[in-house]
Amino acid sequence: MAKISISKRAAVTPASAIRKLVPFADTAKKKGIRVYHLNIGQPDLPTPPEIMNLIRKFPDKTLEYAPSSGMPETVSAWTAFFQNKGFPYKKEDILVTSGGSEALIFTVMAIADPGDEIIVFEPFYTSYAIIAAMSNVILRPVRTHVEDGFRLPDKKLIENKINRKTKALILCNPNNPTGTLYTDEEVRMLADLALKYNLFIISDETYQEIVFDGKKVLPFSNFKDLLPQLVITDSVSKRFNSCGARVGCVASRNREIMAAILKFAQGRLSVATVDQLAVVPLLNNHEDYVTGIRKIYQNRRDTVVRELEKIEGAAFRTPMGAFYIIPTLPVDDSDRFAQYLLEKFSDKKETVMIAPATGFYKTPELGRKEIRIAYVLEQRKLERAIDLLNIAVRQYNRLK
Amino acid sequence: MAKISISKRAAVTPASAIRKLVPFADTAKKKGIRVYHLNIGQPDLPTPPEIMNLIRKFPDKTLEYAPSSGMPETVSAWTAFFQNKGFPYKKEDILVTSGGSEALIFTVMAIADPGDEIIVFEPFYTSYAIIAAMSNVILRPVRTHVEDGFRLPDKKLIENKINRKTKALILCNPNNPTGTLYTDEEVRMLADLALKYNLFIISDETYQEIVFDGKKVLPFSNFKDLLPQLVITDSVSKRFNSCGARVGCVASRNREIMAAILKFAQGRLSVATVDQLAVVPLLNNHEDYVTGIRKIYQNRRDTVVRELEKIEGAAFRTPMGAFYIIPTLPVDDSDRFAQYLLEKFSDKKETVMIAPATGFYKTPELGRKEIRIAYVLEQRKLERAIDLLNIAVRQYNRLK
Repeated sequence: MAKISISKRAAVTPASAIRKLVPFADTAKKKGIRVYHLNIGQPDLPTPPEIMNLIRKFPDKTLEYAPSSGMPETVSAWTAFFQNKGFPYKKEDILVTSGGSEALIFTVMAIADPGDEIIVFEPFYTSYAIIAAMSNVILRPVRTHVEDGFRLPDKKLIENKINRKTKALILCNPNNPTGTLYTDEEVRMLADLALKYNLFIISDETYQEIVFDGKKVLPFSNFKDLLPQLVITDSVSKRFNSCGARVGCVASRNREIMAAILKFAQGRLSVATVDQLAVVPLLNNHEDYVTGIRKIYQNRRDTVVRELEKIEGAAFRTPMGAFYIIPTLPVDDSDRFAQYLLEKFSDKKETVMIAPATGFYKTPELGRKEIRIAYVLEQRKLERAIDLLNIAVRQYNRLK
Repeated sequence: MAKISISKRAAVTPASAIRKLVPFADTAKKKGIRVYHLNIGQPDLPTPPEIMNLIRKFPDKTLEYAPSSGMPETVSAWTAFFQNKGFPYKKEDILVTSGGSEALIFTVMAIADPGDEIIVFEPFYTSYAIIAAMSNVILRPVRTHVEDGFRLPDKKLIENKINRKTKALILCNPNNPTGTLYTDEEVRMLADLALKYNLFIISDETYQEIVFDGKKVLPFSNFKDLLPQLVITDSVSKRFNSCGARVGCVASRNREIMAAILKFAQGRLSVATVDQLAVVPLLNNHEDYVTGIRKIYQNRRDTVVRELEKIEGAAFRTPMGAFYIIPTLPVDDSDRFAQYLLEKFSDKKETVMIAPATGFYKTPELGRKEIRIAYVLEQRKLERAIDLLNIAVRQYNRLK
């Protein structure tokens, strides 16, 4: 009898590019080295007191299941959130999920069968690849480039990737991992493509209000014709510094999609009750808080850009949103360099952890000289972290 | 261009049998009718103060992501929980999940590819069917019968369902929805089959300590040879009356399975941080609390059995665990009867909500005369609820 074996889908699922260096970081810390984390989108900012207070004041005696579609208060709050932005969503168009991740899992499964394809712009958020592998869905990458700030390519190049198995396009705007804010023209081009080829658009709006220099995202929900083909996935994680609450949502005017997602949601019963209720006040009234967050990240973005410019041979365009940047560094292999930072390098007992960009590409060999930085540290720490990167690049290249 | 359509897997996913009557219950409540809920396994008992206090005292300023494998404290606590039961699991064999549901989703995906088969004993927990449909895995039901208290059939009958696509057997012991405690011989038979045919056993242990009359479950983890083929899914929901915390786990000594599940877990980032930490003390020291729970449910079981015996034409065996029972009622169609209870019936402005058993069968037409009762109400409410059922059965049959 053959040895018992795991599924093929499990075997081909990629490991998280962001988290696979963790053991090396742990070893460095055990050696007494301070590690500045630029590798993961875990903001350092405090969770708003409104959220923490509601967690601490949870009034019920029994932690009951929430409805599978979400606590009524939380569904209403997400509705208010969208309506405040001028989006045409009502309660019945919304389902509360365990973070944006679960919203993506449900959406992919509601849209695509095994062997179906979804178009992504590479580099892309690693979880998309994990979710696709779990679901036996094929991600079809369309490449974007560091040289032009990861702008979308010509319409023709995208059309070339569409075939009869293509079910959807996915866009995260502003983008994780690149920080790119897509222009109105780029958004319009994708809306046109979706309408022309009868595709769903999966709009990952986790960072939508974190946009700098007075710019704004053109939301897909502005395109009235597109509404039946649009599925929004969203999350409180980054906007409200509440990653550990695991509260997100999926929103769509497509009744069949929402009915399908409700069935999936029933299979997992519900989202944590206390956490869902805790985020209600901020969802109901998000603008002031998000304005503050936006300013903080814009200042940090300026710091990162200024400091990265000091690294000889680094290349990038100034990102316009989210809190990420992918620069090219003058290194031969960013995976090896990321490991070097944790295993061999330190300056005054300090080092920095970054995410090699290879993990954000599906096409092999791409991203070898690029890294992703999440600027989730306060100014002075950011300055020091990028300075460490600068010193390390020079030492790394001297060693070779 | 054809209308945009959802995936086939979404189309074939069944709606939750337990939750689909909810709109009728809501309407009844709006009419001022009190509804006794015997339809869902949401215990009425208070969540232990230890858990509520920890939620209220969460010390951190930022609700950060937990590690994808779980907070170290929570992983340790699940380890202690298993070790207290004499199970051979260490930290590296455990991953914290969002309830037992997510543990099942990850396990099915780690074991089976689209088109692969998993054997279940019918009637079975509805979520298994939803999870299988999401994953494109085929559930192969082996029938059990109300007449003998849903005992497992002869080994030969199970073997007949095993083919080269069969990847696993799933067993919930004691059982949801039947309340059956499987005997040592039944457990041994399944262990033998798994070893003989090189199958995984998915052991859903959500109710493992809720067993009556001094009896005990024979755990699969007692079979040393079986350990590489055993995956345990578990949850704090029922044992600690903490359904809304959404904390479960998956445990296996199979390194490949755990590595695969970690990758899936990275795709959804983490489980809610506050909730994971809140359940730590009870997991570390579960026995006293669970002893109390067990007594309560045993008393309720006795009440339900006594009251059901008063219904002329009802048939069942006394269940030995969990907090469910599936009796046969003298009605033509339990779906219609369940809806009748909410839509048309009331006695002194009260009615009762039950789950038609059809939703727990995959084979069409089975369970038509059976209902599932969750005895999650205190004694006097239970008595009244079953009395209402008794009155309703007679009125329903008179109407026809």
